[in-house]
Amino acid sequence: MSSTDIFQNETIKEILEHYRVIWALGHASSLMGWDSETYMPKQAYMDRGTASSELSVLSRKLLLDENFLAKLDKAKDMMDDLNEYERGVVRVLDRAVKIYRALPEDLIREMAIAREEARVHWVQARYKSDFNIFKPYLERNINLSRKAAEYLGYEEDRYDALLDLFEEGLTYRKAKSILDQVASQVKPIFEKVYNEELFPSKHTLEDVKYDIEAMKKVNKEVLDLLNYPWERARLDVSAHPFTTGISLDDVRITTRYEGYDFRRTLYSVLHEYGHALYDLQIDPNFKYTPLEGGASLGIHESQSRFWENIIGRSREFTSILKPILDKHLDFTAKYDEEELYKYFNIVRPTFIRVDSDQLTYDFHIILRFRMEHMFINGELTVDDAPETWNNMMEEFLGIRPKKDSEGILQDIHWSIGLMGYFPTYTLGNILSAQISRVLEKELGKISNLILEKRFTDIQEFLKEKIHRYGGMYKPEELIRKATGEGINPSYYIEYLRNKFLSP
Amino acid sequence: MSSTDIFQNETIKEILEHYRVIWALGHASSLMGWDSETYMPKQAYMDRGTASSELSVLSRKLLLDENFLAKLDKAKDMMDDLNEYERGVVRVLDRAVKIYRALPEDLIREMAIAREEARVHWVQARYKSDFNIFKPYLERNINLSRKAAEYLGYEEDRYDALLDLFEEGLTYRKAKSILDQVASQVKPIFEKVYNEELFPSKHTLEDVKYDIEAMKKVNKEVLDLLNYPWERARLDVSAHPFTTGISLDDVRITTRYEGYDFRRTLYSVLHEYGHALYDLQIDPNFKYTPLEGGASLGIHESQSRFWENIIGRSREFTSILKPILDKHLDFTAKYDEEELYKYFNIVRPTFIRVDSDQLTYDFHIILRFRMEHMFINGELTVDDAPETWNNMMEEFLGIRPKKDSEGILQDIHWSIGLMGYFPTYTLGNILSAQISRVLEKELGKISNLILEKRFTDIQEFLKEKIHRYGGMYKPEELIRKATGEGINPSYYIEYLRNKFLSP
Repeated sequence: MSSTDIFQNETIKEILEHYRVIWALGHASSLMGWDSETYMPKQAYMDRGTASSELSVLSRKLLLDENFLAKLDKAKDMMDDLNEYERGVVRVLDRAVKIYRALPEDLIREMAIAREEARVHWVQARYKSDFNIFKPYLERNINLSRKAAEYLGYEEDRYDALLDLFEEGLTYRKAKSILDQVASQVKPIFEKVYNEELFPSKHTLEDVKYDIEAMKKVNKEVLDLLNYPWERARLDVSAHPFTTGISLDDVRITTRYEGYDFRRTLYSVLHEYGHALYDLQIDPNFKYTPLEGGASLGIHESQSRFWENIIGRSREFTSILKPILDKHLDFTAKYDEEELYKYFNIVRPTFIRVDSDQLTYDFHIILRFRMEHMFINGELTVDDAPETWNNMMEEFLGIRPKKDSEGILQDIHWSIGLMGYFPTYTLGNILSAQISRVLEKELGKISNLILEKRFTDIQEFLKEKIHRYGGMYKPEELIRKATGEGINPSYYIEYLRNKFLSP
Repeated sequence: MSSTDIFQNETIKEILEHYRVIWALGHASSLMGWDSETYMPKQAYMDRGTASSELSVLSRKLLLDENFLAKLDKAKDMMDDLNEYERGVVRVLDRAVKIYRALPEDLIREMAIAREEARVHWVQARYKSDFNIFKPYLERNINLSRKAAEYLGYEEDRYDALLDLFEEGLTYRKAKSILDQVASQVKPIFEKVYNEELFPSKHTLEDVKYDIEAMKKVNKEVLDLLNYPWERARLDVSAHPFTTGISLDDVRITTRYEGYDFRRTLYSVLHEYGHALYDLQIDPNFKYTPLEGGASLGIHESQSRFWENIIGRSREFTSILKPILDKHLDFTAKYDEEELYKYFNIVRPTFIRVDSDQLTYDFHIILRFRMEHMFINGELTVDDAPETWNNMMEEFLGIRPKKDSEGILQDIHWSIGLMGYFPTYTLGNILSAQISRVLEKELGKISNLILEKRFTDIQEFLKEKIHRYGGMYKPEELIRKATGEGINPSYYIEYLRNKFLSP
């Protein structure tokens, strides 16, 4: 099958023809984003910012072009005549158009400026650990998000409008039910593991320094092991690890090298690899179309968590990693597989979300989810926010940040206006386990697959069930297609219980 | 002064406002070009090609937008009320509009496709050293160039239309007169130097291998010596060295590391540094405007040749280079400054233009110039072209290529439709000497400036005389402003005579 086979309808063909330049602008913007985090000379940030915002305004204009909208309307009137691929194109574009149309250009511009200012002040505030520097900008971002939510519209809860932006179809009610289940059932697991030290709460390897060039070789060899296609993909260095899909044949991940505690860089690579694999396995017929992206942030995150945690932090993967580590690092030989496994699975409450383990991670998310909901509904002021943050940390994890930099100032998200984004991280965790269960039903135990290095089989499974569909289906629909049911946290909880209570 | 001070006219302000998105597209395209030669995964070339061509079509559309053209017409009607900066904006845009308007969209698309096909076949033809593979594509490119010339219009010679594309205002008559002078006067210099071995025709250092990491340090330290502003600029690796101005605060050069004959990578760096310095010293008030680029290819090349040859290949610069080389390379210590100077200035005829020395370089250009003129005027068929090439090589340099890969197939230019480009290389050589003369008048002998490491003074001079003006003036006007006369090859010939006849 080629893209000429799957897109047959004349109106759809015209739509895709027009869309190609919007795709090209997205391609350019992705590259610009990647470059600004990797190789761009420092002083170019202003020029890059100007170029990016010009291109995004232009892209919006082309998406809301009247001729284009007329064609899209025409396509919407003949949905029954379209095949599934074509319907996917209409669905994705219609959703984008609705969002862009709902938000007035002035508001978009105001938000862009507010974000840039807030980000700059957040950096400063975090550096000085002084929430007051960030406070007025956070307040403005919250107000703008509330305004955006009003324009976007919602049925039950104002926060729904924002959740839907990041995870199509997600509502506060649904998210709350899922997150509450996770919180109530993971809490006793965490407490037992931590109190009885079933997994260590610290490890000597955390302080061991590594040679960065040697570690780069480890990361490269791990990616080789997972068949990372270097002719279509890259690994670079950035301050914060990320993945960019620049095109279906150009996907780039990054990691960082702090020089000690090597699991940090290694598991960043595995995490980003999961994102990259998704993008790399999307149906090549979707090239240059709106279906080129993944189905949602939550589903994307499920893929990164799958490779980082379910595969990567398993005992079996540790045994495969060991010879690679021993080959390049001069200090791992004296630790056996079991020791490494423990080091990779240290369990302890941490202030910082991105440093947290599998048992505490979701509490960081639930905290932010609750605060966002209160912010957006006017039930929490920015004045009270640090105190609320710290109280919840104490409630969930029994630790209380002593300074705002380890508390409310730690994440970039609120500074750049990402309210409603955090829950997708926990959705990803949940889905990674839900998908694993189907995988085990079809291919047998993951532990065996890993030991037999059947990574190609795992990749094929993920491609067939999830990746190849790109943005064709709504996230809920895709999850149902792939797993036979809607999102269900019980597999995730079961996975955590099995892993951590029988160490 | 700020850009709000220099652009005061309301119509100009509106024009610049509209232009900013065209600038942003140029910014994105430059980055995409840089990336595709440096870091892009191989298999992404198709997607990158699609994106680039979409953005260039879009850019043309925005430039030829009716509202924009109306404003430009309005501005053209009030040239007397505009200041010099504003007139520069109108001039540059008007020229771009005229070119884009003259060429029908169908022809542009046809040329783009023809180029891509020709380039692919050129790569293959060169690899197999078989001109027949490339011949039909070269023929089509020539025909398309002729067609373009007809659309663009000319007064005397069809080739004029193409020359003007690359060097505003250049004509065949002018170029011929200049190049003939160079040819006739450099020939006896070359012959004397080569026959009497005033400079060596080969050197043992050509075969000496270097450690690439060590050589990278040399290149970096040489750029440090020249105050290369790393916070606004980069040095990377690519198959063919080049410079990209992505924005006024983001200029990137590349070099290559073959692993032997270290002068090749070193002088590539100095050459590209000259281009980069030009872009880096353009008036920052020109940011995001059509004045952001240099005045012409010839003037740009004068800057690269100045740093590569007039500074870089001087005896004095060798003495400054020596300690840097000795610090990082383990084989240079046993060669004294004079030996290094000779190695950097080997004189011998070569088949390959980019490998040629200062005395033979221009003959490579004159050959191509003559052939292009004949191609465009239907006086030379592609069938006869290799023979003509080889005959001229024999006539000029006394050597005859034995295979087409060292003859007519060596350059990428004709494969990507660049006909009329080559003469700008020799213009650059000529202008580098013409500008040097003014510099010496104002600051004293270059040899002393180098010995005293007064590179900042040299940079300031170039900024004041040339760089800061960006695209404000026509090349001829700028040359006249900077040197007090039109382009004059006699300084260049004098420079070559002095340098090579009194070694």
